[in-house]
Amino acid sequence: MKIHKPFWLFLIIALASINLSTYAQTPSTNKIDEKAVRSIFDESLINGQAYERLRVLCKDIGPRLSGSVGADKAVIWAIKEMEALNFDTVYTQACMVPHWERGEKEYVAVHTKDSKNAIELKACALGYSLGTPAEGIKGKVVKVNGIEDIEAMEADALKGKIVYYSRPMDPAHIETFDAYGGCVDQRSRGAITAQQKGAIGAIVRSMGLRIDDYPHTGTIDYSSELPDIPSCAISTKASEDLNKMLLEDADLELEMRMSCERFPDKLSYNVIGEKWGSEFKDEYIVVGGHLDCWDNGEGAHDDGAGVVQSIEVLNLFNTLNLNNRHTLRAVLFMNEENGTRGARKYAETAKTKNEKHVVAIESDSGGFVPRGFNVDGTDKAILQMLKQISGWEALLKPYNLHRYKQGFGGVDINFLKDQQIPLMGFYPDPQRYFDIHHTELDVFEQINRRELVLGAASITSLVYLIDKYGLGFTPAYKTETLNKPKG
Amino acid sequence: MKIHKPFWLFLIIALASINLSTYAQTPSTNKIDEKAVRSIFDESLINGQAYERLRVLCKDIGPRLSGSVGADKAVIWAIKEMEALNFDTVYTQACMVPHWERGEKEYVAVHTKDSKNAIELKACALGYSLGTPAEGIKGKVVKVNGIEDIEAMEADALKGKIVYYSRPMDPAHIETFDAYGGCVDQRSRGAITAQQKGAIGAIVRSMGLRIDDYPHTGTIDYSSELPDIPSCAISTKASEDLNKMLLEDADLELEMRMSCERFPDKLSYNVIGEKWGSEFKDEYIVVGGHLDCWDNGEGAHDDGAGVVQSIEVLNLFNTLNLNNRHTLRAVLFMNEENGTRGARKYAETAKTKNEKHVVAIESDSGGFVPRGFNVDGTDKAILQMLKQISGWEALLKPYNLHRYKQGFGGVDINFLKDQQIPLMGFYPDPQRYFDIHHTELDVFEQINRRELVLGAASITSLVYLIDKYGLGFTPAYKTETLNKPKG
Repeated sequence: MKIHKPFWLFLIIALASINLSTYAQTPSTNKIDEKAVRSIFDESLINGQAYERLRVLCKDIGPRLSGSVGADKAVIWAIKEMEALNFDTVYTQACMVPHWERGEKEYVAVHTKDSKNAIELKACALGYSLGTPAEGIKGKVVKVNGIEDIEAMEADALKGKIVYYSRPMDPAHIETFDAYGGCVDQRSRGAITAQQKGAIGAIVRSMGLRIDDYPHTGTIDYSSELPDIPSCAISTKASEDLNKMLLEDADLELEMRMSCERFPDKLSYNVIGEKWGSEFKDEYIVVGGHLDCWDNGEGAHDDGAGVVQSIEVLNLFNTLNLNNRHTLRAVLFMNEENGTRGARKYAETAKTKNEKHVVAIESDSGGFVPRGFNVDGTDKAILQMLKQISGWEALLKPYNLHRYKQGFGGVDINFLKDQQIPLMGFYPDPQRYFDIHHTELDVFEQINRRELVLGAASITSLVYLIDKYGLGFTPAYKTETLNKPKG
Repeated sequence: MKIHKPFWLFLIIALASINLSTYAQTPSTNKIDEKAVRSIFDESLINGQAYERLRVLCKDIGPRLSGSVGADKAVIWAIKEMEALNFDTVYTQACMVPHWERGEKEYVAVHTKDSKNAIELKACALGYSLGTPAEGIKGKVVKVNGIEDIEAMEADALKGKIVYYSRPMDPAHIETFDAYGGCVDQRSRGAITAQQKGAIGAIVRSMGLRIDDYPHTGTIDYSSELPDIPSCAISTKASEDLNKMLLEDADLELEMRMSCERFPDKLSYNVIGEKWGSEFKDEYIVVGGHLDCWDNGEGAHDDGAGVVQSIEVLNLFNTLNLNNRHTLRAVLFMNEENGTRGARKYAETAKTKNEKHVVAIESDSGGFVPRGFNVDGTDKAILQMLKQISGWEALLKPYNLHRYKQGFGGVDINFLKDQQIPLMGFYPDPQRYFDIHHTELDVFEQINRRELVLGAASITSLVYLIDKYGLGFTPAYKTETLNKPKG
């Protein structure tokens, strides 16, 4: 029996040390941190101005698709706003962005043989879609369950027809972003795939979990060739209606009239504000959201919330006189929705200048009640980040922050991944996001002030802890320096 | 040094055992349970009818204050609804409930010396308040910060005056129910306290965290003598306005006209449905919510959500053919809002019949996205329940259920506490609850289907696990039997 004793001892000590190692700070720093986090939440809940700031962005500026007058106004507003808050520096990064306009309200209708009247379906053009000729287009509707159905078809199988991508988001997902991910290829690659088999147009069921009559717009894939056929989304209710009609009559015709137009690219900007670090001025903690939004709503959740939360992180540090060792950077990206030109520009600049990034955090999942953060990066970094955050559990748990998992950081910061920069995505509750995402319902009134400012406080608290304790490993930029041959 | 070794060993073993003991099930039962919980969430999200059922309760029946026609209709609806779902038995428990009617829309206004016009404040009578004479009442307004201010006053200090309870809910609380708890005595005991010092009326700032113009009604305390002066709540915005006006003119007069009336008690009912247990038919797991709601809204969150979730728990067991060893009881309480007569009746009956309760779970915190459960009971039971639930963590975490704490079970089941019945309160996210609580905003449209049905699935999953594994200790009713002298 004696031989087993050391093994058991080892196991017991290992288990115990897992328990103990979750607290990296000493009891006294824990008290200081507890107080700091509490002050961040108090200030944000009681005096935080993120909600008022969002009201201005949504109501006074409103829609701000890249290339629009609204986007230009948003850039100016963001500069003035951060200057007024006395950030150490506020500047822009120029980039060329796509310019597309929706034009007149879209008209999409079904024609049955036995009905003299057309039945209109609530629809909206997808971003950067071509318009139709003024008289519209008309073709037999071909219902498919996804782009795989089209890829299996012969070259001319869809000649003169209009494809209808009908696969709904799967409501059984708890993570609604997974349900979105399981369907969105129909929107992003639907038109180009249908065109390759001769189709003259494409429609897609809206990316939403609720059955209602609000169509969801969104971008088509920019990485491949652009389709030359018009494409639009129909509301989930219209999709349900169309499914029923097709059961009764497989030979339905679809009519589409859209006057949207593509224009030459325009000059626009990322807007960046900094609060300089007391110890490491040239090392950056990024918090970001995107300034642009779709033209059919006010971009309140997507992503006005992320914009005002990013600004509020620096503002809370200022207001509370919290010391930041590293430079805090609020990055308001341009053109997340249809081109990610701002994100590419930021990543390119970071690479060229060899900028040292401690972490990049993105808020682009709505202004809903906070739950935690996704972490992303190299496999090793992910493990170390999760371990480090678990040491902060006792500090964050009182604020109902509980969820830290490997997951997507965000569309904009994702361009920093190949520079081995650790990424984090703010994770608010995801249940209601796809009720309003990319629809006319994404307006200021959909935002709950407490949920929004709790989000700002959550991100600020995480930034405070990362700035003070790091992420549990030596950042890549430091390792590279250390690895350099000496002398 | 040797003397310390056993102590360290003890500590290490204790820490290790905490780590290990959190999993009570074997790996194979874990797989079965994982599948069962998944099926519960799938069914509720995909096919669950709780949302449709709530639509009927809110839209076809609507307001249902105890003693009203709506409450009578709700009782009949609940019986039919559970009968249609083929529960093993559906029955009622009769109780006498208060009957009070609001009458005409209330009129509350401020009169300043320099203004010829009255400035109306959005207000609503508190439940069971007396009305005013038809011509109304008028008196100098005395602003206080709470009932303590009044208690310190001399006997006739408020003669002919109208007291204004102005203390706002503290927005810094993460737990909004704590903010409510810190203020609600002004509403429940404000009028009786003011009356004792000669006041002719009382108004209170609404129990809400948002500044808006929707007054929140609510009950006055029934445990002590009823006040004979009228009392009402003014909206948070009206309260802010009044505060400003009082700063400029301390001699403001307040006018109140309310035509509410008290009537003799009426007969009403709890409605109970059961799904009998396969092993322990006479041992009960209760899930409950309250059928009644305030007259100014549709009682969607408070507590239509709890009603349809309670029904859905039994329905999901039926639909999924899940075995329940103990009898599951959906208890729809009458009169939670203004008298708790139904809850008293249920507790009384349980005591008289010596009914064996495994646990009582209440859902009365709104139909918001689930986070976990409060647990309540004896100190020992609370510790054991929390330990038992922590063993289920891996099963519940994928559904974003993370919070299990000692806390209030609920107003209705609280009457079972002195029978040593373990209590649990469903804990949905609390941030938005007091935006709509007891106002005309508490309507069906405020409910998000996914959030509601996730709640139903969360409660059902917990019931499934408790039914199968118990709560980690021998229930009081079994202990008592064991303690009986033999023979």
